[in-house]
Amino acid sequence: MKKKGVVLFSGGIDSTTVMAIAKNERFEIYALSFDYGQRHSVEVEKAKKIAPDFGVKEHLILSLALDKIGGSALVCREIAVPKRKQIGKAGERIPPTYVPARNTIFLSYALAWSEVLGAEDIFIGVNAIDYSGYPDCRMEYINAFEKMAGLATKAGVEGGMHFRIHTPLISLSKAEIIKKGIDLGVDYALSHSCYDPLPDGRACGECESCQIRRKGFKEAGIEDPTQYG
Amino acid sequence: MKKKGVVLFSGGIDSTTVMAIAKNERFEIYALSFDYGQRHSVEVEKAKKIAPDFGVKEHLILSLALDKIGGSALVCREIAVPKRKQIGKAGERIPPTYVPARNTIFLSYALAWSEVLGAEDIFIGVNAIDYSGYPDCRMEYINAFEKMAGLATKAGVEGGMHFRIHTPLISLSKAEIIKKGIDLGVDYALSHSCYDPLPDGRACGECESCQIRRKGFKEAGIEDPTQYG
Repeated sequence: MKKKGVVLFSGGIDSTTVMAIAKNERFEIYALSFDYGQRHSVEVEKAKKIAPDFGVKEHLILSLALDKIGGSALVCREIAVPKRKQIGKAGERIPPTYVPARNTIFLSYALAWSEVLGAEDIFIGVNAIDYSGYPDCRMEYINAFEKMAGLATKAGVEGGMHFRIHTPLISLSKAEIIKKGIDLGVDYALSHSCYDPLPDGRACGECESCQIRRKGFKEAGIEDPTQYG
Repeated sequence: MKKKGVVLFSGGIDSTTVMAIAKNERFEIYALSFDYGQRHSVEVEKAKKIAPDFGVKEHLILSLALDKIGGSALVCREIAVPKRKQIGKAGERIPPTYVPARNTIFLSYALAWSEVLGAEDIFIGVNAIDYSGYPDCRMEYINAFEKMAGLATKAGVEGGMHFRIHTPLISLSKAEIIKKGIDLGVDYALSHSCYDPLPDGRACGECESCQIRRKGFKEAGIEDPTQYG
C-alpha cells in the first residue's frame, strides 16, 4: 500500500514541483490548498486544474479568513504589492507581501488533516534561496514546527505517529527547481506565481514573485510559458 | 500605555478566568474566538455576551472549517460524545472529543493577529490537571509552540518581538481555577462548558466537560450556576 502524503499546494512553481517529487516518491497524494482572501486567488483555480494531472487522491480546499487579520499586501487592498522599481528599497529585508504566520497556519491545518488521514508525511515547497526572505521558509523554522508537531497530536502522543515535514526544495535555486520539475514531466504553463494578477488572470510580470519566476526560467535556459500582461 | 494581550477565548470557565487574569494584569485585551463547526457552537454566542464585561478592546470571531477535516466528536455528528458511563472506558487515554491539532491552529491564528497588533503576549487557558488528557494542553507542547513562534514571524525575526504564550492555569485544579476567578469577580453563570448541549442551549450535565465543571464547583465549595438539562 502506498504511503499517504499531504502536500501544501498553491498552484505555483514550487508546490507543483513538490507534488511531482511526492508522486515520484510513490506517495498517495492528498493536496491541500487555501482560499485565504489573497488578491491572487486565481491561484486556487489554477491549483484545481493542475491537481488531477498528479492523480491526487483528494484535493481539499479550505477557506481561511486571513483578510480579517490583515497585515499583508496579499490580503489588504490598502497595502500595495511592490513592483520592479520599489523592490528591495523599503529598508526592510522582508517585503510587505509577507503574510503574518501564514506557513504556521497552513502547516497547522496540514497537521490536523494528516492526523485524520493517518499520514505521517507533510510536503511544503518552501525555499530559502530564490525567495523573498520570509522567515517561515527557513529550515530552522521548519525544524521547530516539526518538533512542536510531534507533541501536538493524539496520534503522535498516543498512537506513535511521527510527523515529518518534507522540504525538498529548501536549498535549491529557482532554476534548479524548474529543471527538476521539467525532468519529472511538470508542465508549468498552468502554474501561477503572480501576487497581483490582471483582472483577466494574466501575471503582472513586475511583482517580486513574477521577477523570481522570470529569472528562474532564464537561468534554467527553459522557455517561460507564462503569459505576462 | 497598556500592553496588548491576545486572549484565546471560548467562553468556558478556563478562558473566562484567563481573561480576568489578563485584565487584572492590566493588559489591553484582544479576545479571539472561533466558530469551527463545533456541535457546541452556542459557546460562541456566550463568548460574545461575556467579552464586554472585561472591557475587551476588540473581539475577533473567526470561522474555521474544521468540520471539513473531521476526526473528532466535537465536529462530526457521526462520532458520539461519550456520556457518564462511557467515559474512560474506551481503552484510550485521550477521548474522541479531542480535535486534531486544534490548539496548534488556534495559537497560529493568535500568533498572526498578535503580529499585526504588535502584541507580544498570548493567553491560553490550557490546563493539565483537571482535563481530558489532550496533548496540546501540556507545558511541553506550549514550550515547543513558543519556540517555533519565535522563528515564524517577520516581527520576531526582523522587528525584535518576543512572543510569549501565557498559561496561567496550566497547573491549577478546576476548583482552584474557579476560586481564582471568583476572587477576580468572574460571574460564571454565562460561561459554557458542555460539549453536547440540548437544543435549547442548556448543558447536558453528562459529558466529560460537564462532569469536570460540576466536580470543580463542588470541590471549590461554590454553587454551580449552570442550568443542566
